[in-house]
Amino acid sequence: MSQLVIVGTLAFDAIETPFGKTNKILGGAATFIGLAATNYNIEGAIVSVVGGDFPQDYINILKNKGINCSGIEVVQNGKTFYWSGKYHNDMNTRDTLVTELNVLADFEPVVPKKYRNSEVVLLGNLHPHVQMSVVNQITAAKLVVLDTMNFWIDQTWEALHEVLAKVDVICINDEEARQLSGEYSLVRAAEKIQTMGPKYVIIKKGEHGALLFHKQEVFFTPALPLEKVIDPTGAGDTFAGGFVGYLTQTQDYSFHNMKKAIVHGSVLASFCVEQFGTERLQNLKREEIITRMKKFKQLSQVDIEV
Amino acid sequence: MSQLVIVGTLAFDAIETPFGKTNKILGGAATFIGLAATNYNIEGAIVSVVGGDFPQDYINILKNKGINCSGIEVVQNGKTFYWSGKYHNDMNTRDTLVTELNVLADFEPVVPKKYRNSEVVLLGNLHPHVQMSVVNQITAAKLVVLDTMNFWIDQTWEALHEVLAKVDVICINDEEARQLSGEYSLVRAAEKIQTMGPKYVIIKKGEHGALLFHKQEVFFTPALPLEKVIDPTGAGDTFAGGFVGYLTQTQDYSFHNMKKAIVHGSVLASFCVEQFGTERLQNLKREEIITRMKKFKQLSQVDIEV
Repeated sequence: MSQLVIVGTLAFDAIETPFGKTNKILGGAATFIGLAATNYNIEGAIVSVVGGDFPQDYINILKNKGINCSGIEVVQNGKTFYWSGKYHNDMNTRDTLVTELNVLADFEPVVPKKYRNSEVVLLGNLHPHVQMSVVNQITAAKLVVLDTMNFWIDQTWEALHEVLAKVDVICINDEEARQLSGEYSLVRAAEKIQTMGPKYVIIKKGEHGALLFHKQEVFFTPALPLEKVIDPTGAGDTFAGGFVGYLTQTQDYSFHNMKKAIVHGSVLASFCVEQFGTERLQNLKREEIITRMKKFKQLSQVDIEV
Repeated sequence: MSQLVIVGTLAFDAIETPFGKTNKILGGAATFIGLAATNYNIEGAIVSVVGGDFPQDYINILKNKGINCSGIEVVQNGKTFYWSGKYHNDMNTRDTLVTELNVLADFEPVVPKKYRNSEVVLLGNLHPHVQMSVVNQITAAKLVVLDTMNFWIDQTWEALHEVLAKVDVICINDEEARQLSGEYSLVRAAEKIQTMGPKYVIIKKGEHGALLFHKQEVFFTPALPLEKVIDPTGAGDTFAGGFVGYLTQTQDYSFHNMKKAIVHGSVLASFCVEQFGTERLQNLKREEIITRMKKFKQLSQVDIEV
């Protein structure tokens, strides 16, 4: 089995949407990415940090899914990263109410020895120095995928560009792509970002799907239209988790296979939003994924005669 | 050759976008629909009304493309419908600066005798009474497609519902679908709209593509990502024109063939926005459409194994 290392946050999330409100629940990018990726036949590990307040039950959720947690540092006298947000009625925009970095502020990632020869690395949305440290610990990786956000593009431009030079795939949303490139057109943004390092550019557009750019080519996958979206938190991370999970399993890092991989990402993300937090991902069954893959095929595939 | 009747506006448009500004140029829904539909092997006719100020050159543009113009009434002492709008920087939203109905206010459509047995009818965005009059003149049509807008949903609810009961396909944008159904979710909106008459619901999302709903099924086609969008005016009408043009040519009105038809609509719309007004559509070559169909196939098609 091929190995995947995920560096990213484990967190407490408190979420409010038009459909309800949660107390502090299990959240964090690495959590969603990991849970999504474990739907594939791979050996996955999370590298992260939590405080002494992080319940063993949460770690067990990950472990029971087969995720290696030896790279999760526990700072006993520290507090876990905490995020709280409130979604607007359209579910596309949200206000961040609280961001407490806590133990994340001094995070120095250590990749367990067993995973230093991993084939695939996912650098979750963290300080570029943390991302770079992980890249330097897994030097022989065949595929490095990076996520980032407006804050790092704004505040740590140079450090981010140093990491970007070492990255194969960048996976960001449309606003971040525009900010990073200074181009409004996503076609031009993707062209420009490719000159920064990543040979593949994925631009996530939430409910409007995702684009995969490579040289002069572009592939698009829609999001599955849903009757009800309960909580969009983690959908982008779940998408990325499905993407790297599928690639790690198939060990084929071609553009053609990446097309299939973003379809897998979209399918998994369509589950994520149906319940609060990680609930839906925790209880996801293989048959449900297969059924939805079929639905997805009907949604997007047709014989085009030219 | 199968016949298509298009009832809709012929207009003067004055357009401002971040890329420039036009004087009064050829516009109107029927113009864009007609020009798009003539890329197919069909017999198309426009039913509309213009004033004495409408240049014969504009009529000739349509005639030279093979569109029958005998159903275009000329009110010699009247003025042609005039619309002016200014697009915002994102090109997705616009302000209407002027709407002068002029001869459109008293429009009573007369379908030429030769076209009263047409197979396909496109009811462009007009007063529902005008749409109903056309439906009543072509009683044996195999496919009736309707477009409408927020104004008619607001102001002529009952008349609109009378027409909807006689319509096979409705083709509207996301906001109109929400307004017509009172549902935010497009899946639910499409379900509800199907109970009003149309068995097929197309929801246009501009640069975010289009959805085709039928019973419990849904198909999606993206919009081609473009480097530069010069003028979005008429893109939705061009989409509809490609849709009905393809269906009229193939004479297959099944859900499966409609999937192909909305791909054709998307491909044609991708040209429309590249220049102001109808310029790009006027000069469109067959080879360009084929090249773009191939691009579209690469954009959206992949072998999904389930």
